[in-house]
Amino acid sequence: MAQFTIALDAMGGDDAPSMVVGGVILAAERLLDTKFLLFGDKARLEPLLARHGGEGGGRIEIRHTDQRVSGDEKPSQALRKGRASSMGLAIEAVKQGEAVGAVSAGNTGALMALAKFALRMLPGIDRPAICTLLPTMRGQSVVLDLGANVECDAETLVQFAIMGEAFARVMLGIARPSIALLNVGSEEVKGHDIVREAAQRLRDTALPIDFKGFVEGDGIGKGDVDVIVTDGFTGNVALKTVEGTAKLIGHHLRSSFETSIWTKLSYLVARPAIEAARDHFDPRRYNGAMFVGLNGIVIKSHGGTDAFGFANAIGVAHQLAVANIDERITEDLRNFSAAAVGAAATGS
Amino acid sequence: MAQFTIALDAMGGDDAPSMVVGGVILAAERLLDTKFLLFGDKARLEPLLARHGGEGGGRIEIRHTDQRVSGDEKPSQALRKGRASSMGLAIEAVKQGEAVGAVSAGNTGALMALAKFALRMLPGIDRPAICTLLPTMRGQSVVLDLGANVECDAETLVQFAIMGEAFARVMLGIARPSIALLNVGSEEVKGHDIVREAAQRLRDTALPIDFKGFVEGDGIGKGDVDVIVTDGFTGNVALKTVEGTAKLIGHHLRSSFETSIWTKLSYLVARPAIEAARDHFDPRRYNGAMFVGLNGIVIKSHGGTDAFGFANAIGVAHQLAVANIDERITEDLRNFSAAAVGAAATGS
Repeated sequence: MAQFTIALDAMGGDDAPSMVVGGVILAAERLLDTKFLLFGDKARLEPLLARHGGEGGGRIEIRHTDQRVSGDEKPSQALRKGRASSMGLAIEAVKQGEAVGAVSAGNTGALMALAKFALRMLPGIDRPAICTLLPTMRGQSVVLDLGANVECDAETLVQFAIMGEAFARVMLGIARPSIALLNVGSEEVKGHDIVREAAQRLRDTALPIDFKGFVEGDGIGKGDVDVIVTDGFTGNVALKTVEGTAKLIGHHLRSSFETSIWTKLSYLVARPAIEAARDHFDPRRYNGAMFVGLNGIVIKSHGGTDAFGFANAIGVAHQLAVANIDERITEDLRNFSAAAVGAAATGS
Repeated sequence: MAQFTIALDAMGGDDAPSMVVGGVILAAERLLDTKFLLFGDKARLEPLLARHGGEGGGRIEIRHTDQRVSGDEKPSQALRKGRASSMGLAIEAVKQGEAVGAVSAGNTGALMALAKFALRMLPGIDRPAICTLLPTMRGQSVVLDLGANVECDAETLVQFAIMGEAFARVMLGIARPSIALLNVGSEEVKGHDIVREAAQRLRDTALPIDFKGFVEGDGIGKGDVDVIVTDGFTGNVALKTVEGTAKLIGHHLRSSFETSIWTKLSYLVARPAIEAARDHFDPRRYNGAMFVGLNGIVIKSHGGTDAFGFANAIGVAHQLAVANIDERITEDLRNFSAAAVGAAATGS
C-alpha cells in the first residue's frame, strides 16, 4: 500500500506526454512507497504507458481529461478555463488531499495562478516564491525567488528567507543553513532600501538563524551560503544568466575541440573528464522548482526536460512531502513572528 | 607629437603601482599617437618605469602626489579629501582638457563620485551608467548599467539604451546595433512597470534604432542583441553571476582532470583546446568599463587585473576618444528628444 500519492500534469512540457510517462515510470521504480495520478488524455497515455513497459506495479493511475493549458496561455485565461485541464486537476488532487503534491512541466504563470487560487497561501505568508537548488563549488545552494514576484518589499524578502531555510534543511539535510540576501556589494550600506531593510530585520531577529548579510552575484557559484534570497526579477535574471553562461562555455569548448584534426583527437582522450565536469551542470539534475509558501506542494519542472529530468522533479515533490515541508515553514514563521514580537516588547 | 593624452591613476588596484606601470608601457607600445600622465608616488613610479624598460619613448610622464584613495573609502570621504589623490588628479586632467580620458583600477564608488563631481553629466543625461563588453556566442555585446544606479526609472533606462547604442557603434563597429531591455520574459506583458514603460518609449520613438524588446538572462550569453540595458542592481548581479559561473565551471573542469593519473595525462593532450576556450573568457580581455554619460571619458579597470588587463583598459579609453564618444552620445540624445517631441506633436 502506497504511503504517498503524487499528482502529475501529463500534458505539460515540450515533449509531453511521452516525457512525463517516461519520467513517472522511472520515479515509480525509485519511490516504492508512492502512487501516481497521471492527469491527461487517456487515449494517448495508455499506449505510452504500455510501450514504456507497464504501469509501475499498479501504482500509476490515469485520470482522463482532454483539456490542457497551452504554453502561451495567460494566467488569467488559465484561471478562467484551465481548472478542468490536466494541470488544474493535478492541483485539485492536492487541494482535496488525495495527493501530497503536484508536478507539472507546463506554463509557469498558469501553474502559479491555478495553484495560488486552489491552494491559497500558508498562514503568515503573503506571496509564494519559486525556489530551487543550484550547483556551487561547495555542493548546492537554495535560491529564491526565481520569478514569481518581480517586485518584493522587505517583509516579503524576510518571509522568503524563512521559507528558503526550511527548504534547505529538507533538501540539503543541513541543520542550520546559512542565509544571505543577494546584493550589489557585501557592505551594509550597499543596495537599495528594500534589501537593506530586509537585512536589518533578519539581523534583529532573536531566532537562531544563521544570517550572513549580503552576497554578490558570484556568491551563487562560490556557494558562500546555503540559501540566497532575492526578488523574482533579479533571481530570474541570475538563474538564466547561469544557464546562458554555462551554454556559452560549452559552446566555446566544443568549437575549440573542433578547430583541427589534432584537437578532435584530443577530445576523445579528454572526453571522460569533460563529461564528468559537464554532469555537475546537467540541468536535469537540478530539475524541480518548488512554489514555496503555498498550502500544498507544487513542483514546476523545466518545460524542455526529458524523462530523467521529470523523474527528478517528482523526486523533489516526494522528498518535500516526506519531510512535511509546509508544516516546517509554518512553524518557522510562527517562531519568527513570536521572536520579532518578543524582541519589540523587550526593546532589544 | 602625441595626438591624445590619457591620464592614469597609478596607485589604484590590487597590484598598483607595478601593474599600472607595466600596463602603460604595454599601451605605449601599441598607441603611438598617445601620451600618458601617470599620477602617483614618484619615488615608487620612477624605479618601476626604469625596471620595466624605459619611458615609452618619452611619452610617459610622472605627476607626483603622495595621496591615494584606499579601497574601503566611502564615496563621500573620497569627495571630501580625495581630490588631490592620484585618482582625483587623473580626473582633474580630463576636466582641464589636458587629457582625453582617465583610467583607474581603484575604488569604483570613489571613482564614480569624483568623476561625477568634476566632470558633470552630458547635456540631457540624468545619471551615468557603467558599461562594458561581455563575450557571447556571436562575439561581444554591450551591457549597462553594471552598478552605478541600483534604482532606475523608465526615462533613465531609455537614456542608457541610447548611450549603450553609441558605445556599441564605437567599440563593436556596428552601424546600427540592436538593443533590448533585460527582463524576466520576452513577452510585452512581462516584468515590472518601469521596464515595460521604457520598452514602450523605445518602441514609440521615430528614430531608426533597432529596438528588439526584451531579452532574458540567457540572452546575454547567446548574444541575442548587441546592447543589453538594465538597472544597476540587476546588471551588477548578472555580471557577477557570469563571472561566478565561469569560475565554477573552471573549477569543475580542473577537478575532473585531477581525479586520476589517466585524466591528468589526458589534460596534457587536451590543454591547447581548453586554453583556447578559456581565452574567450579571459576577463583581462574585457577589462575597461566606461562610466557613460559623464562629460569626459573615465574608464574603470578591474581592481585585480594585471599589466595586460590594464593596457586593455587604456585601449578602451583610446578607442572611445578617437571616436569622440561623448559627442556621439550627445547628438544621439538630441535626435532622440527631437524625435520624441515630433512623435508627440503628430500624435503618432
